[in-house]
This record gives sequence, structure tokens and C-alpha cells, in this order.
Amino acid sequence: MLPLEAVPNFSEGRDRATIDAIGEALAGHARLLDVHSDADHNRSVYTLVGNEEQLVAALLAGIACASERIDLRAHVGAHPRIGAADVVPLVPIREADAERARAAALELARRVGEELALPVFLYADLAPGRGPAFFRRGGTSELQRRIDEGELAPDFGPGQLDERAGGVIVGARRALIAFNVNLAGDDLDGAREVARAVRERDGGLPGVRALGLRLAGAGHVQVSMNVEDWRASPLHEVVAAVEREAQARGLEVIGAELVGLLPAGAAVAAAGSLLRVAGLDPSHVLELRLLGE
Amino acid sequence: MLPLEAVPNFSEGRDRATIDAIGEALAGHARLLDVHSDADHNRSVYTLVGNEEQLVAALLAGIACASERIDLRAHVGAHPRIGAADVVPLVPIREADAERARAAALELARRVGEELALPVFLYADLAPGRGPAFFRRGGTSELQRRIDEGELAPDFGPGQLDERAGGVIVGARRALIAFNVNLAGDDLDGAREVARAVRERDGGLPGVRALGLRLAGAGHVQVSMNVEDWRASPLHEVVAAVEREAQARGLEVIGAELVGLLPAGAAVAAAGSLLRVAGLDPSHVLELRLLGE
Repeated sequence: MLPLEAVPNFSEGRDRATIDAIGEALAGHARLLDVHSDADHNRSVYTLVGNEEQLVAALLAGIACASERIDLRAHVGAHPRIGAADVVPLVPIREADAERARAAALELARRVGEELALPVFLYADLAPGRGPAFFRRGGTSELQRRIDEGELAPDFGPGQLDERAGGVIVGARRALIAFNVNLAGDDLDGAREVARAVRERDGGLPGVRALGLRLAGAGHVQVSMNVEDWRASPLHEVVAAVEREAQARGLEVIGAELVGLLPAGAAVAAAGSLLRVAGLDPSHVLELRLLGE
Repeated sequence: MLPLEAVPNFSEGRDRATIDAIGEALAGHARLLDVHSDADHNRSVYTLVGNEEQLVAALLAGIACASERIDLRAHVGAHPRIGAADVVPLVPIREADAERARAAALELARRVGEELALPVFLYADLAPGRGPAFFRRGGTSELQRRIDEGELAPDFGPGQLDERAGGVIVGARRALIAFNVNLAGDDLDGAREVARAVRERDGGLPGVRALGLRLAGAGHVQVSMNVEDWRASPLHEVVAAVEREAQARGLEVIGAELVGLLPAGAAVAAAGSLLRVAGLDPSHVLELRLLGE
């Protein structure tokens, strides 16, 4: 049986001590594969794998650590957020494990509310139609207003956002690809236009969410994306679309970066496209066949 | 411990009964992952994995089956060959297993000579500097002449090539990529020029061997390649070079095909190139990280 994956996003991308402390809390219970920290986003994305009990224990420890160490009132970053532990998805590595991921996420959500006394908002497969953006728009003060006016309510935990740690968005979802394309210069409006041109919400590619961000520290702008359905919108076609839209606006793509790990299927599809091999898929990659044993 | 891989090449790509019989003989002892048959090459490439004992048993059974069913005297095919079981490489999936692969190949070579009474020629890691082409040039009659004149001798088995089954080239080597790029039309000289332009022997890309072949049945020509060092010559750069050289001669690339399975590293490097992510490697692919557990 393959493990499940978790990809928690924490609102700290600058302070090394806190980034490490969260990593240690997570790694005490499950296998930590990757940590991606971005100072401009002021955010770190951890990738870990384990069985249900390991991941729930790891995430509880990580969320507790983040809630103690991160104060949202003092937080500044390019990426929107509503919590110290902002969004915590459980991910099935095989689609057949989707129910396992949902059950583990629900267990985690309940225990974060009960044991850590943080408001928990279910999203994705546990609340179809609700994505992180649904909770984040307007920030924590707007979210508190919506709670107060009865527009929405936490699914677990208190009705009041934690003053320092905010709330936590918990759910289960299919593997997605968090992927950023960097554009030379400081044209934030241009980056936002490119983001609008490629994202599903504004008529772009299916399953693609995109934001234009300024990365003051890195000295460029960025189209920051979640490719939620890389079968419908192959990652290499998303990158090509961003390049095309950027070029049309006189913007230069200076490179791209992966946040977290890439699903093998997306990597192999991109390879097949470049190598001119029709239908190349993970069954054609030796090492991936060994996983099937 | 990861298994070893074997990629035996048999000189039959047309007769389904023989292709299946060899496959069944192999699969009776090890895990058969892939069979790639080509009617124009008149050749089939099998990919199997297992431990040393499993692979040696599987390959002995497969070579015995091929020797009974394939008569080289009646064989016509675009790909050069010197045996019914033509070349039988053992491959370490991890470089740390290179010695295991060499030992298994040597054991296989000895037993093919002793038990199947076929002349065996060591190559690659068991006879540095000798590749399949060293034995194949001029075909079986030329090979017999060279043996008779003392230029070379089988390392195991009789000194006389088997009238029907020829000899067997056995060795261990690093993973390579057998990869064909198809060119529209019937310009065999053009395909040969492209092959010369990209292969190491004539000043092209390091670790690339290439032949221009006519595929009468498929109705096109082909640059048939072994990319022996895909770290030195990334596969996507080889394909780009073939496309460039073809275009310069007015030849159109109509697609490419993989023979056997692709090493994950080569697939991920190609993906990274297309996705504009510098340094993308297998450690960035989730499923490949799970193999490391």
C-alpha cells in the first residue's frame, strides 16, 4: 500500500528557526520529503508522506508549532493567507486512495479544532466548490466579518479566529502542481494580466489558478499558479501559454520553479512532448514500473 | 534492494508465435515489463527485472527458446545482428549495483556456453571497448572468418557459430536509451547523413550511436540510436540535434519512439528543459522519492 501525501502550507518563509522548527515537528511523525520556502511569499510548503496516523500526528504537531511561533499580526508577504498554518491538504498518491485521504483530513480537522482550539474550515473534497481563495479574500478581518454575519462558520473549533494564528483550511484533494513562472522586471500589472489570461476563472486553461505577484526581494514579478488538473491542462502547455502571453506583453520569462514535488505523470507527459514520443506515460519509465511491484 | 534489469534483443520482430514464446520463456522466471517488436528491424527487445538468479534463469530459457525457433539463415531485417539471441545486457538500475550486474552477466555467459552450446562474446563492462557493432560488422560470415583467422574468439562455448542461431553477445552495461526518430519519405542516404552528424564516432554527441535505416514496411526512414550516456547527451538535446540535422537536409521528423523503457533521470531532465525549471531531477518527482524508502 502506498503512503498518503500531505502538503501543508505555513505562513513563514523568512525566519529559518521557525521554518526548521515546523519541519522538525512534522518529521517527528512522518517522512518529510521536501521544504520549499519563499521569502517574498513569506510562506513555506512542506511535502510529507506516511500512513493516516503518521500524517495526522505530524500535522497536529506542525500546526501546533506554527501557531506558537507565527504571529499573523506582524506578517507581511506577497501570498494571501488566513492562518499561521494556512492550508493543509491531504493527497492520495493513487486515485484509489482518495477515500483514505478524505478520512484522514476529516480526522485532522476535528482534532485541530478540539485539541488546538483553532477554527478549521473544510475545503476541496471535504467541501466541494470551496477553495482556499474562498476563505482568503479580504484577509482575516474580512473572514471574521463573514463569520460574524453568518455567511460562513468554521466546521470545527471556535467561531473566533485566533488573534495570532488565524484559522486553518483543511481538506483532501487530488495532487496538484504548485508552479511559478518568473518574469523579468517590475511590471506587476503585466504579471497580473498574464495570470488572468491563463487561469480558468477568466476563461483560460481548465484547472489552472493563477495570481500575479511582485517579489521585491528576488527583484522580479511572478505568475504563481496551482495547476489543479494536469491531465486536462498539461504543465508544459501551461508554461507555453504563460510564455506566449508574456511575450505578447513584452515580458521576458526568466525561469520557472516548482513548489514541492512533481507528480510523475506530469513530468513524463512533458518529456514525451519534447521528445516527440506520442503517448509517453509513467508506464514507460523503468523506475516507476518498479513501484507497481 | 532494487532488482537488476535485463534488456535482451532477439532477432524476431514479425512472427507473433515466436515473439510470444520467447516472452513466456522469460516471464517464467523474472518479471517481464515490456516487449518492443519491430517488423522492419525484425527484432524484439524485452525488458525484465529480477534478482540475479531469476534473470539468469529467465535469460537462459529465453535464449534456448530463440535458438530453437529462429533460423538466421532465413532472417531478413533492417537491423544488423549476429545471433538469434543477439545481444543480452544486464543493467544495474542503481550505479551501486554495477558489480552485481557484471557478476550476473558473467554467470549467464558461462552457462550459455556450457548448457546451450552457443558461442558467447563478452562486451561492454565485461570487455571494455567492445560494443555490439564490433561483432556485427559484416554479419555472421565475417564474424566466423575473424574467429577462424584468430582475430577474436568466443569467451565461452564452441569456436564455431551455430548455423541457425549464430552467437550471443553478453555483457553488463549502464542503462542506455534505445530511441528512434522517424523521418518522412524514403531518403535512406539522408537518414544515414543525419545519423553520422549526431553520433559520437563521427564527431557528434558523446555516447550516441546512430544508424540510418529504411523501414520499408512502415514506409519511412529512421535514425535508430543508442544513447549510451544520457547524462552527457541529454535525450532531448539528441532529439533536437536530429531535428536540426534533418531540417538542414529538407527531411521532416514525423515522430520518435522509445524501445524499451526510459530511465527516470532522462525523462525528468527532458521535462525540466521544457518546463524551464533549472536542475529538475528525479528527487523532485514524488513517486520516485517513494522508491527511496
